[in-house]
Amino acid sequence: MDHVLPGRLMAAEMAAQPSVLAALDHRRSLLIERVRAVLPSPHIGTVLVARGSSDNAAVFGRYVLELAGRRPVALAAPSLHTLYGARTRAGGYLAVAVSQSGRTPEIVTTLRRLRRAGAVAVAITNEPDSQLGAAADAVVDLGAGAEEAVPATKTFTAQVAAFAILAEALGPVPWSHEDWAALPSAVSAVLDDPTPAQTAAAALEGAPGVIAVGRGLWYGTALEAALKLRETTGMLAEGYSAADLRHGPIAVVEQAFPVLAFCPPGPTAADMAELVALLRQRGAHVLTVSQAADAALGLPGGLAEAMLAIPATVRAQQVALAASRARGLDPDAPAGLTKVTATH
Amino acid sequence: MDHVLPGRLMAAEMAAQPSVLAALDHRRSLLIERVRAVLPSPHIGTVLVARGSSDNAAVFGRYVLELAGRRPVALAAPSLHTLYGARTRAGGYLAVAVSQSGRTPEIVTTLRRLRRAGAVAVAITNEPDSQLGAAADAVVDLGAGAEEAVPATKTFTAQVAAFAILAEALGPVPWSHEDWAALPSAVSAVLDDPTPAQTAAAALEGAPGVIAVGRGLWYGTALEAALKLRETTGMLAEGYSAADLRHGPIAVVEQAFPVLAFCPPGPTAADMAELVALLRQRGAHVLTVSQAADAALGLPGGLAEAMLAIPATVRAQQVALAASRARGLDPDAPAGLTKVTATH
Repeated sequence: MDHVLPGRLMAAEMAAQPSVLAALDHRRSLLIERVRAVLPSPHIGTVLVARGSSDNAAVFGRYVLELAGRRPVALAAPSLHTLYGARTRAGGYLAVAVSQSGRTPEIVTTLRRLRRAGAVAVAITNEPDSQLGAAADAVVDLGAGAEEAVPATKTFTAQVAAFAILAEALGPVPWSHEDWAALPSAVSAVLDDPTPAQTAAAALEGAPGVIAVGRGLWYGTALEAALKLRETTGMLAEGYSAADLRHGPIAVVEQAFPVLAFCPPGPTAADMAELVALLRQRGAHVLTVSQAADAALGLPGGLAEAMLAIPATVRAQQVALAASRARGLDPDAPAGLTKVTATH
Repeated sequence: MDHVLPGRLMAAEMAAQPSVLAALDHRRSLLIERVRAVLPSPHIGTVLVARGSSDNAAVFGRYVLELAGRRPVALAAPSLHTLYGARTRAGGYLAVAVSQSGRTPEIVTTLRRLRRAGAVAVAITNEPDSQLGAAADAVVDLGAGAEEAVPATKTFTAQVAAFAILAEALGPVPWSHEDWAALPSAVSAVLDDPTPAQTAAAALEGAPGVIAVGRGLWYGTALEAALKLRETTGMLAEGYSAADLRHGPIAVVEQAFPVLAFCPPGPTAADMAELVALLRQRGAHVLTVSQAADAALGLPGGLAEAMLAIPATVRAQQVALAASRARGLDPDAPAGLTKVTATH
C-alpha cells in the first residue's frame, strides 16, 4: 500500500495524471484560442526557456512546435540573458517559458528580456499567478494541483500535454481528438500495471549506471527517464538520442550494462530497432518501453507517437519510484535537491 | 616518448593545434569576407547542424553567434528533417553545418533541406570537397590536415575557432586581434605542461564516473571534456552546465566523486565559484581548470574568456589521453567507435 511506503507523495502525484490530462483536454480549445490571440504575425521563429524537468518537456516541445509551426525552434541559453547581457532581437518570435512553480529566477528574467526584445511571451506553468505568469502575454496554466514531491511527475506530463496544445495553436499536428480522448485511460492502464517496473528496477540493482535512449518525439522522454532515475536513486543515469549515443557514449556500454530504450511506433521505429540490436550485440541489458508484446515495459495500443510519449514517461516514473524504494531511499525528498532551484 | 605509447596519433594531432589555429587566424579576414558575402538580409535567425564532437563545438557557436548576430540560435534536430518530413520554412535563416569529414549523412541531408527551405547554408568542415562542402553556399575549411585518431582534437578546436570567425562575420565580439595572436602560444604552453593532466588522470582511477561542468561560453568545453573521457576510457562521463547540474544531476555527486570544473574569467566566474564550493561541501573531488594559481589544471593568463575556451579544451584532451593510457587502453581506436558514424 502506497501510503505506508516512502515516496507516497510521488505515487499520489503520479496517480493524479489521468485526471490532470483529462482536465487539460477539456480546456484545450480555450487554451488554443488564448495562444492564437497573441501569436506574432508573421511568426519567424520560436524560443523555449526552461531548466530541469521542464527542459525535458521543452525538448518534446522543440519537435512538435517545429513540425506544427514550420519555423525553427531554439532552446534558449539563459546565461546569455542573465549573465552576458546579450542584445538578442526577438521581434516576430514566439518565446515559451516553462516552469512548474513560475518562480525560477533565470527563467523569469530570460522570458522578460525576450519579451522586451520584441517576442510574444507565453508561460506554461502550474502557478498562473506567479512572476512568470505575470511576465507573459498568455498563460497556459497546467491545473495540476499543488506538487509536493521533489521529482516532478504530474506537472511534467502536463507540460508535455501543454506543448501539444501549443502545437495545435500553430498548425497541423500528427495526432487527433481521438488520441486526446484515449490518453487518460492509456495512462491509467500503465499505472494499474506496476509489476514490469518493479522487475526493471531489480535489473538496475548493482549496475554502475543506466542509459536511457530515445529519438525524435520520444527524445525528451528518454532525458526525463534519466533525470527521474538520477533524482530518485542518485545513480549515474544519462539520457541520449539514438543518434548521439552512436557518436561516442556507446563506448561505455559493456556487458550487462542496463539501457532503457524508448521505442515508439512511427518514423523512428526502424532506427530504434537497429540500435537495440546493436546494444544487445554489445552485451547491454536492454529494457524496451514499447507497444511490442515482448517489451520489458509494455504500452497500450492505439495512440499516436506523440501522445504515447506520455504513457511511456509514466513507465519511466514507475521505474524510478520502484528503484528508489528498492534502495531504501525516499523519492519524495532526494538528497541534495530542493523544489525550486535558484540559478542565475 | 609519445611515439612508443598508445595514443600516438591523438598526441600528434593535439600537438598540431597551435599551427592549425595560427593558420586559421592567418585566413581569418578571407573567411569573414566569404561568409559576409552570402549572409541573408535581413538575417532573422540561425540554425546549427551537428553531431558528436562537432555538436559540442556548435554549443560554443550557439553562444558566440547569438552574442554577435543578435538573433536567436537553434541547434537543429536532424530527425525532423531526415525522418519526420518537417516542412520548416527557413528563409532569412543562416544554417551552419559542422562535420569534420563532411560525410555524416544526416548532417548533409539536414543542411540540404534547410537550404532548399530558404536558408543560407554554411559548412564548417575539414574536407571542403566533401558532400557537405558541395551543399553549402560558403565553406569555412578548417585546414587541420587529415585526422586519423578516432577522438577529435585538432579539428574540434579548429571548429571552435571557426565559430569565432563566423561570429566576427555577424557583428561585434568580446575578443580582439590580440587574443587571436596570443592563442597559439597559449595552447603551446598547455601542451608543454602535461604533468597536471597526469595527476588529474590518477584521480579518476577507480571512480564510478566523472562529471564535467562549465557554463556559457565554456559549456561546450565541459561537454567536450566529458565526450573525450567517455571515448578514450569508456568511463561514465557526463557534461553539464552549472545551472543544469544544480537541477538534479548534483544528486549523484557523493564523497570523492570527481568533477572537472571549467572556471573561466568573466561573467560566469562568480556562479562557477559558488558551484565549486557547493560541490566541495558535498564531498566531491573537484579538479578546477582555470587561471587561478591553485587550479588543478592551470591556464595561461591574458586571453579573453571565449578564446581561453580553446586552451581549456586542450587541458581536457590531455586528461583524456593520460586517463586512457593509465587504463592500458589505446585512445587512437577506442572500442566500438569508428571515425565516421552513419546515422539517419
